[in-house]
Amino acid sequence: MSPALTKLSHVALSTPNLEQSRWFFKDLIGMEEVEQDETRIYLRCANERDHHSLTLREGPVGIEHIAFRVSGPDDLAAYEAQLRDIGVETTAVAAGGEAGQGDALRFTMPHVEVPIELVWDIDRPLSPEPMRSKAPSASTKFWRQGVSPRRIDHLSVQTTVEGTGLGERWMTEQFGFKRREYVEVNGQVALSFLSVTPQVHDVALSIDGENRPGRFHHVAFAVEDMSAILRAADMMREHDIKVDLAPGRHGIAQSYCYYVREPGSGHRVELYAGGYVIYDPDWEPVRWDESNLLTGTMFFGPDFVPGSGGPMDANTPCAIASEPAASAVG
Amino acid sequence: MSPALTKLSHVALSTPNLEQSRWFFKDLIGMEEVEQDETRIYLRCANERDHHSLTLREGPVGIEHIAFRVSGPDDLAAYEAQLRDIGVETTAVAAGGEAGQGDALRFTMPHVEVPIELVWDIDRPLSPEPMRSKAPSASTKFWRQGVSPRRIDHLSVQTTVEGTGLGERWMTEQFGFKRREYVEVNGQVALSFLSVTPQVHDVALSIDGENRPGRFHHVAFAVEDMSAILRAADMMREHDIKVDLAPGRHGIAQSYCYYVREPGSGHRVELYAGGYVIYDPDWEPVRWDESNLLTGTMFFGPDFVPGSGGPMDANTPCAIASEPAASAVG
Amino acid sequence: MSPALTKLSHVALSTPNLEQSRWFFKDLIGMEEVEQDETRIYLRCANERDHHSLTLREGPVGIEHIAFRVSGPDDLAAYEAQLRDIGVETTAVAAGGEAGQGDALRFTMPHVEVPIELVWDIDRPLSPEPMRSKAPSASTKFWRQGVSPRRIDHLSVQTTVEGTGLGERWMTEQFGFKRREYVEVNGQVALSFLSVTPQVHDVALSIDGENRPGRFHHVAFAVEDMSAILRAADMMREHDIKVDLAPGRHGIAQSYCYYVREPGSGHRVELYAGGYVIYDPDWEPVRWDESNLLTGTMFFGPDFVPGSGGPMDANTPCAIASEPAASAVG
Amino acid sequence: MSPALTKLSHVALSTPNLEQSRWFFKDLIGMEEVEQDETRIYLRCANERDHHSLTLREGPVGIEHIAFRVSGPDDLAAYEAQLRDIGVETTAVAAGGEAGQGDALRFTMPHVEVPIELVWDIDRPLSPEPMRSKAPSASTKFWRQGVSPRRIDHLSVQTTVEGTGLGERWMTEQFGFKRREYVEVNGQVALSFLSVTPQVHDVALSIDGENRPGRFHHVAFAVEDMSAILRAADMMREHDIKVDLAPGRHGIAQSYCYYVREPGSGHRVELYAGGYVIYDPDWEPVRWDESNLLTGTMFFGPDFVPGSGGPMDANTPCAIASEPAASAVG
Repeated sequence: MSPALTKLSHVALSTPNLEQSRWFFKDLIGMEEVEQDETRIYLRCANERDHHSLTLREGPVGIEHIAFRVSGPDDLAAYEAQLRDIGVETTAVAAGGEAGQGDALRFTMPHVEVPIELVWDIDRPLSPEPMRSKAPSASTKFWRQGVSPRRIDHLSVQTTVEGTGLGERWMTEQFGFKRREYVEVNGQVALSFLSVTPQVHDVALSIDGENRPGRFHHVAFAVEDMSAILRAADMMREHDIKVDLAPGRHGIAQSYCYYVREPGSGHRVELYAGGYVIYDPDWEPVRWDESNLLTGTMFFGPDFVPGSGGPMDANTPCAIASEPAASAVG
Repeated sequence: MSPALTKLSHVALSTPNLEQSRWFFKDLIGMEEVEQDETRIYLRCANERDHHSLTLREGPVGIEHIAFRVSGPDDLAAYEAQLRDIGVETTAVAAGGEAGQGDALRFTMPHVEVPIELVWDIDRPLSPEPMRSKAPSASTKFWRQGVSPRRIDHLSVQTTVEGTGLGERWMTEQFGFKRREYVEVNGQVALSFLSVTPQVHDVALSIDGENRPGRFHHVAFAVEDMSAILRAADMMREHDIKVDLAPGRHGIAQSYCYYVREPGSGHRVELYAGGYVIYDPDWEPVRWDESNLLTGTMFFGPDFVPGSGGPMDANTPCAIASEPAASAVG
Repeated sequence: MSPALTKLSHVALSTPNLEQSRWFFKDLIGMEEVEQDETRIYLRCANERDHHSLTLREGPVGIEHIAFRVSGPDDLAAYEAQLRDIGVETTAVAAGGEAGQGDALRFTMPHVEVPIELVWDIDRPLSPEPMRSKAPSASTKFWRQGVSPRRIDHLSVQTTVEGTGLGERWMTEQFGFKRREYVEVNGQVALSFLSVTPQVHDVALSIDGENRPGRFHHVAFAVEDMSAILRAADMMREHDIKVDLAPGRHGIAQSYCYYVREPGSGHRVELYAGGYVIYDPDWEPVRWDESNLLTGTMFFGPDFVPGSGGPMDANTPCAIASEPAASAVG
Repeated sequence: MSPALTKLSHVALSTPNLEQSRWFFKDLIGMEEVEQDETRIYLRCANERDHHSLTLREGPVGIEHIAFRVSGPDDLAAYEAQLRDIGVETTAVAAGGEAGQGDALRFTMPHVEVPIELVWDIDRPLSPEPMRSKAPSASTKFWRQGVSPRRIDHLSVQTTVEGTGLGERWMTEQFGFKRREYVEVNGQVALSFLSVTPQVHDVALSIDGENRPGRFHHVAFAVEDMSAILRAADMMREHDIKVDLAPGRHGIAQSYCYYVREPGSGHRVELYAGGYVIYDPDWEPVRWDESNLLTGTMFFGPDFVPGSGGPMDANTPCAIASEPAASAVG
């Protein structure tokens, strides 16, 4: 068993309207555009020193991959062997396949059908003056532009019941994820919140109402606090951005939340704040069920019942594996 | 014409569960209980030096009256004459009829059927040590208890279409209210926001979907800012308080809002923050209509369409004139 | 006696580094540049529909004038007569002397030596798309740029002991200002907070430690709430802006505050939030003295003792009457 | 080498005025009093499920110990052996020596002279109804009382230059702490920020200006966000609590901060919010020196220069090892 993954590194999206997606993430969300190469635009948040936490590529709506950072330079080879042993085919991506990072390993996660990338080497370029922060632990100036998120926080994937169960077990066994909280409905695990960090989730898995294979649900960026989310909600209204869920607070993770649609591709994006941390190795996963589910989904905020057919359940066009742009990548 | 009214003074509620209502306003909302006499409990907010902005009385659910402060000691007599001239019957209430205040005048507003009280003399007792604030402009310590509102802000009344039109005109002509913003649907004024202060509204009038006479919709208390509303939303969840509308921001008045039901009586209470002020005497009322109504009701927040039958439209048991407790008072 | 003034309209500054001052107010503070004519740049805040609340003019550091809006179209002539009667010389400024406004009256306030302008007609141009807000009560999009203040709030002037006493009396008698709070040190009124609006102050007068005639101390812009001030404090650090007083809360006015120096001219600018409102005509001014002065100056925040020689006492180069740019205007 | 420690568990204070200290932590800070035995009062924060994060004991001002949780049930024995090997004498404390926890190991850290306790077994009692939260991941209701901190965050210890250097190295080598940020003045490490968690610091070490051995500087409790700190600052003023440093933001750790003195003992307490997290195993410690130290200490806020003799440098009575109450404990 290789060491647990370190953290969520980045999400690679493809979008049919690259300029509109770029406007959203760069101007309105306010991420730094670190680099653009022939294939992609690379962006990062104000508190990230890594080269990118998001990439955009022109193409049919989809997810190229979600990427995690491994725990050391030898882990890529170790994972390659480990995955081969259990029959998962991997593809090596040489340094330079994506700007700002070294060798990587790609494969599609069994059961959940999500394209995954593992990477260790990542550049940490200083932001150019005059956008550089006076805090050396940050990259760009605090509140430089738009929403001004601090960092990528987590992502969420919808899958089949089987995908939720087997996929979670696979992630736990292969990558060191731990279950932190979960929701059981009708005796089935409908949502599960997993992390390799002390966060409640780096990845959330949820049942897709229609039992389809892996589909991207949302990527979340962390902002400073709830007031930054409310400020963002004002901005989204001013710019006619589609809202899937108005600002509120989840009981699960105790986090403040707000979900919108990126206008170029329709990808769902969460703005996230708060939440609690888990340092104890003997943490017992928090269980929610029919008796308190509504407190779990929204401690306060608009009514939100997963699976009830509202905007948060709409998953087109956030497909993953079925999209050519995505499947062509691995 | 007498001078315009000065401000909303207080709301007198009656409740069938006095102790539960007292718990809500005193312990959870955190108002100071200034006095209790044989009839009522008198409460005020932390930034109010007047004796009370809310009274509670045991009885069937209803509104005894809403009270405004006049602009000077001679105004009561002047208003009595002015109202008599236009055929509105008034009742004099001698000093002591309510604790902490002097002579008052009561009558029922025509067209809207709301019992109104006018008062000038009001005691300004210091809060007892140790709850007294170190800021002499306040009464009790900042953030002393619960939600900790700063002051009463406004109230809202539902009425008939005719009541909205004629009632508003009556308030404008008799009391110096000015229209600040309004919503026109199908060519009818569905909501109108009126004030004698620079606030966007001291009183809001709205059409009751069923064309019934005046009914109390809510009383609003102002808190420091939006973070205090979100804190309150956590508290309400922890105490199982019924929520009518989750936290959000109105486009109308630009104010942050949150609506709950007081558990003892079911009266609707708004927690309110922000908003803008109008100092110009030539302010042109802001008009909203079908083309931008949803931006007006909620700049951000849960969907809210007045008249669509949601929790914000439910008006039982917030009746006014039809309740014995209320009608018996005037 | 003419009716009381309506509100603070605008402040006209002159600066030796126009482009740097423009960068500060337009890019970093985030005001809208509404117009530029041969003489001045005209700016306003996001919630202001009036043409300008601040003007910038190239020249030696100084204040051209502070301007108030009168209560009606006939007030300018009435004030001209009223001022003439008490021996104050006025200068008529024809419409167009400043862009976006009509006829104005200028004079220097006795005792305090501040150049004042009175104006009634003011244009209310819509902000151009795409910066226009979806809230018709605002001008530009919420949080469009930088600090994003909502409106001009108040200004503060330092003067002699005599100026504080006689100047205040003059403002009260001639313009309808009311004293809301004051500080007495050694039996002298050291600070007085005056308003024609329900705010605690539209104008603050304070003793200059060196007993010099009227000198501008600061102009304050109101932001949404304290979180907007803290965000601004991050921004000011990132841009090396000189800070005179770190974020805190005054006991006087109960307002959140933060003071910086505009880099082009050295003019002091306050970012302001909160505060309470006074609707009662019989408000008794709140008195502070040696026994609770420190609570009054800072309910919380960095130590601040007016007159102790700290950055908040430094008044060069914020002179008023002694500057050619200012004296040449009237 | 034993596995790295898991987290800061609790701080055990002794106070000459137990009731006043209890009032501060229980009523004003708003911690839950979980238990009281013959020796101590045990308290925890609203988001803590462990039995306690703070204990109070009557006695001369001092620190009994600071306690960390180890990573597994076998670690106590392993650490005992490991410490014995390097000549550090340990004392075993049988389960029950402190309420709510199992066997513990105590010793005094070399170089820094801080009494340390290691523990694994800790009870996780449910909070009693009606104070229990509806979020199972929390213990007591959100915002139940006073400041309402979420959890203990970190602590800070002053020591000699030698202690800073050797102590840090010892903590790193023995317990798995990592240096996250540090300040170098005159080529000496004056402050170092260490953690076993992704936080920037679980423990801060700083030079005592007088080169004395280990002295407790402060314990920090994390609140929801900066607005909770400002609310606390209002409360502290209302209750005459001594403030050592007004609210501001450190550049180091990017965290919001506020320091007060607990009135019963004079122990310094920080209220803390924000900060960033470090998930990368190859994190390069952030270095600050004379060129940017003031940005590091206060990104914004009151001036704060460690070692300049201000309130933050005053370390009496926060002694550690020299106090009988502390030394008698182990």
